[in-house]
Amino acid sequence: MELLNQHVSIRKFKSQSLPKSVIESVIYSGAKASTTGNMQLYSVVISETPELKEKLIPLHFNQNVVKSAPVLLTFIADFNRFTKWCEISNAVPGYGNFLSFVTAAIDAILVAQNVCVAAENQGLGICYLGTTTYNAREIIGVLNLPKLTFPVTTLAMGYPNESPVQTDRIPLKGIIHKERYNDYSVSDIKELFSFKENLESSKQFIKENNKEKLAQVFTDVRYKKADNEFFSQKMLEVLKEQGFMF
Amino acid sequence: MELLNQHVSIRKFKSQSLPKSVIESVIYSGAKASTTGNMQLYSVVISETPELKEKLIPLHFNQNVVKSAPVLLTFIADFNRFTKWCEISNAVPGYGNFLSFVTAAIDAILVAQNVCVAAENQGLGICYLGTTTYNAREIIGVLNLPKLTFPVTTLAMGYPNESPVQTDRIPLKGIIHKERYNDYSVSDIKELFSFKENLESSKQFIKENNKEKLAQVFTDVRYKKADNEFFSQKMLEVLKEQGFMF
Repeated sequence: MELLNQHVSIRKFKSQSLPKSVIESVIYSGAKASTTGNMQLYSVVISETPELKEKLIPLHFNQNVVKSAPVLLTFIADFNRFTKWCEISNAVPGYGNFLSFVTAAIDAILVAQNVCVAAENQGLGICYLGTTTYNAREIIGVLNLPKLTFPVTTLAMGYPNESPVQTDRIPLKGIIHKERYNDYSVSDIKELFSFKENLESSKQFIKENNKEKLAQVFTDVRYKKADNEFFSQKMLEVLKEQGFMF
Repeated sequence: MELLNQHVSIRKFKSQSLPKSVIESVIYSGAKASTTGNMQLYSVVISETPELKEKLIPLHFNQNVVKSAPVLLTFIADFNRFTKWCEISNAVPGYGNFLSFVTAAIDAILVAQNVCVAAENQGLGICYLGTTTYNAREIIGVLNLPKLTFPVTTLAMGYPNESPVQTDRIPLKGIIHKERYNDYSVSDIKELFSFKENLESSKQFIKENNKEKLAQVFTDVRYKKADNEFFSQKMLEVLKEQGFMF
């Protein structure tokens, strides 16, 4: 499992475009992932042209990784295709609801992760764009996504033009629970996060952001309460607009 | 990518238990998956004892696969650990909202799929249990899950005791969209689903369920509107109970 164990996100790509056969082969492998009832409740939009990329870049907050990537793959939770099949089969579909969104979103994300593994196996690099759910409404507009679809994540993909060091992970015991969830004491938390807090890169991060603690960089700069609440409200509205909230 | 391309779900396992080192190594590889801001917003509960399995089996609707599996891995969207870290760091967390649930759920599912790939690489078999979101409230009770956590999927895992044939997939062109989403015409849908409809197994499935069309088995038997709506309402309530809806 060297391939999985060596994973790093890539944020600088060579300008070289990707052969169609390579893109299709990684999606082919992605689509071998398990899905709910084998319903395959997802679609993948491949955006490569300057026209589309220029529209998507600002929706991903102009991150350099998006500008650099030759290909953007948007993974769509998709109950539209399956519902259309039901409709022409004298079957009454019932997928305009929240559970069905969650089911399709899980399908789409399983496929996305398989695509990552397949891409890295072919020498490509990837970076996930979490901004997809923030600006789902605008992405729906640009990609012409119909009702009963929703963009859940995006992969920036291309040939790597950097070799970053692997990021840290908290110790395995910090994510594993035996039989039941064992909630964390203050000393557990201190122990689990101490490695991350003491990294040179973390110290620099704190300094650059004028903070005292690493956690404050997350709460005050990167993932702020007000932003999270704003985008929560927006996402729930968009789920309704897309027909997923009965 | 033979490993990905040959994926099949396994529903019958040998009774043989799994060495701790094997379970931990597949979770180690799983945890190398990308997560949002490297926050690692997930936990994995390993349930192996008869006590726990007997409590979980009915919550997964007594499926044989659950009874057969020596190990159940429940993947938890987890903002509890990170929030506790913020709280002891003079940082004000803002993760009790829907966007934060979605973010953590995506993290947990990326890890789950990496665990699958790692498990299959070690000769293990897996089956996803979609029932996890249906009975999240009861699973939360059994596993003692605190606020700001939510079980998003479960893997039944063990050494395979069957060699099923790989299930069908719709043609790749049916899931790929170039630049923008190209919505499906009636003839597109007919073409995409014709292979699945004409499988011998599908015909048998229709007959067993006394239906005329394959799609009706999904809408009338397996994934019914009334059930989906019931579990949607329940899941939204449980998200609120877990502190994810501000």
